[in-house]
Amino acid sequence: MLRGDRTWVYDEPPVIIATGTVVGPDEGKGPLSSDFDVVHQDLEIGQPSWEKSERALLEQASDLAIKHANLNVDDLSFFVGGDLMNQIISNTFAARQLGAPYIGVFGACSTSMLSLAMASQLVAAKAGKYVMAATCSHNCTAEKQFRYPTEYGSQKPPTAQYTVTGAGAAIITAKGKGPVITATTIGKIMDLGIKDPFNMGAAMAPAAVDTIQGHLQDTGRSPGYYDLIVTGDLASVGHPIATDLLKRSGVEMQQTKFVDCGLMIYDLNNQKVQAGGSGCACSAVVTYGHLLKRIESGELKRILVVATGALLSPLSYQQGETIPCIAHAVAIEAQQAQQS
Amino acid sequence: MLRGDRTWVYDEPPVIIATGTVVGPDEGKGPLSSDFDVVHQDLEIGQPSWEKSERALLEQASDLAIKHANLNVDDLSFFVGGDLMNQIISNTFAARQLGAPYIGVFGACSTSMLSLAMASQLVAAKAGKYVMAATCSHNCTAEKQFRYPTEYGSQKPPTAQYTVTGAGAAIITAKGKGPVITATTIGKIMDLGIKDPFNMGAAMAPAAVDTIQGHLQDTGRSPGYYDLIVTGDLASVGHPIATDLLKRSGVEMQQTKFVDCGLMIYDLNNQKVQAGGSGCACSAVVTYGHLLKRIESGELKRILVVATGALLSPLSYQQGETIPCIAHAVAIEAQQAQQS
Repeated sequence: MLRGDRTWVYDEPPVIIATGTVVGPDEGKGPLSSDFDVVHQDLEIGQPSWEKSERALLEQASDLAIKHANLNVDDLSFFVGGDLMNQIISNTFAARQLGAPYIGVFGACSTSMLSLAMASQLVAAKAGKYVMAATCSHNCTAEKQFRYPTEYGSQKPPTAQYTVTGAGAAIITAKGKGPVITATTIGKIMDLGIKDPFNMGAAMAPAAVDTIQGHLQDTGRSPGYYDLIVTGDLASVGHPIATDLLKRSGVEMQQTKFVDCGLMIYDLNNQKVQAGGSGCACSAVVTYGHLLKRIESGELKRILVVATGALLSPLSYQQGETIPCIAHAVAIEAQQAQQS
Repeated sequence: MLRGDRTWVYDEPPVIIATGTVVGPDEGKGPLSSDFDVVHQDLEIGQPSWEKSERALLEQASDLAIKHANLNVDDLSFFVGGDLMNQIISNTFAARQLGAPYIGVFGACSTSMLSLAMASQLVAAKAGKYVMAATCSHNCTAEKQFRYPTEYGSQKPPTAQYTVTGAGAAIITAKGKGPVITATTIGKIMDLGIKDPFNMGAAMAPAAVDTIQGHLQDTGRSPGYYDLIVTGDLASVGHPIATDLLKRSGVEMQQTKFVDCGLMIYDLNNQKVQAGGSGCACSAVVTYGHLLKRIESGELKRILVVATGALLSPLSYQQGETIPCIAHAVAIEAQQAQQS
């Protein structure tokens, strides 16, 4: 299964048989709105705290994924998940409600593809029958924990990113209808010395580049193998940096083929989201909600989702540390594309 | 590989070819002192902050494990790790220094066996050649983050546990000399309503019981299959509760065969550690330092390590939530025992 340095290539690619996606009001005003299962009209989601709101999003996305797969929660072998909250508490509480065996993972905003990579690996190894990968984030919990509570109304620089309110869940199994996961590449920590938590795109760009290079090298694929290479949440500052770094290292991306979930989820001209979206839910809902629909419709055959994560803690930032970053990549293909 | 509900049983059991264990001064005064590779005489480890001290312990344990395996860091396919710090920052910074592909996991104090379970699964699935599992904790970082900074000198109730200062790392591969991992069982969240972060043993006991029962059921093994069943850090309050809960559910443990890392690492009569040890490093250093030596010497042939984790966050506690708990179990056997 291991190919090259850090890539799993699956002889019998696991299938994403169902997904669930839930977003908040800002994501509902963005261009991908109609692709999400549920759009909430308020940030509270009927809960008395932001943390409970975040958890409610995840529980709803998980329930939808299980329902769309025509399964019961007891059918899940494992629930693999994590989030931005300290001690990944949103996933832990959701796991308590679900009752499924629980593997907690953490990769900040890259948790979307880390959990999907681990879930697909477990299925490919016959270590799990139905495995759910899920993650979530909420604008108000993330701002409160990592920067300033939204209620303070503090100003943000244009390099800042806007944490997506939402949750995405996917159910993976060995056989069935749906797009397949043909390969995954695990990231290494990249840290080029950026300290500013209001400029995570620039901090994360080298990690995306390193994982894309590693993936292409390990699989022997060229960028042209994919209809789309999608980074997680580099947004308007980080994505051009990644494009430039790839170009300098000899990997030429056609601009239309190299996109970013953080740039896709909002209308940057008309929504006040600074450089674009971020958060664990950003790449999760764009992938599970939007991109998989484009694969289903036949518009896309092969995509590589490269979710990026800035692994800072508020304390590490306060202590003057730089921001360690990582990116995990998952190759998703239409079953026909894979069989041809 | 999946057997029963949530257990991986390996036809070709992966081998723990090397370990590294590092502890602080209090653990050095305990009865297992001579089993650890390095005993530091102070809590600072030459670092300017407690967080940097914790990280230094992990980097040292990892370096020792790699050295004991006669490997270079480049030989590692993956580093699987996590810790108690927000955003598992100790492992992330250690991963930055190591440069290995990094899979961040979180299970609070159960992270020791969660990381070992995932590492063994990757090796068994041929998804990794050499995979390192590692974790760490530091008394002063944990107290500061979860309760009160040690420097405040606040009093603790006798049900409180004392976070182990230390780090443990293990390197897993398919073939070699050393004890083997024959099975692992992933935990489910158990939460019986305890809210007191000074009584984690009682909160975690039901999770240990659930995982032991699940493991025995999935594998068809009886408790007598094992020379020793070792819980992670239930300590003097939680361990008798677990014994009692097991008895009530018909699983009779011989007292000498059912022990706890939190009770083994300190001399409870002469060290001021309240109910006993806890922290990610507790079960890691007791397993990798002490128990594996007893397997090596032939004294033990088969053990089941059931690491327990209290997955609370300071915020979830402040918001009045109960403590969700989990336990992950790994069966470790002498190669001869396994072959016979």
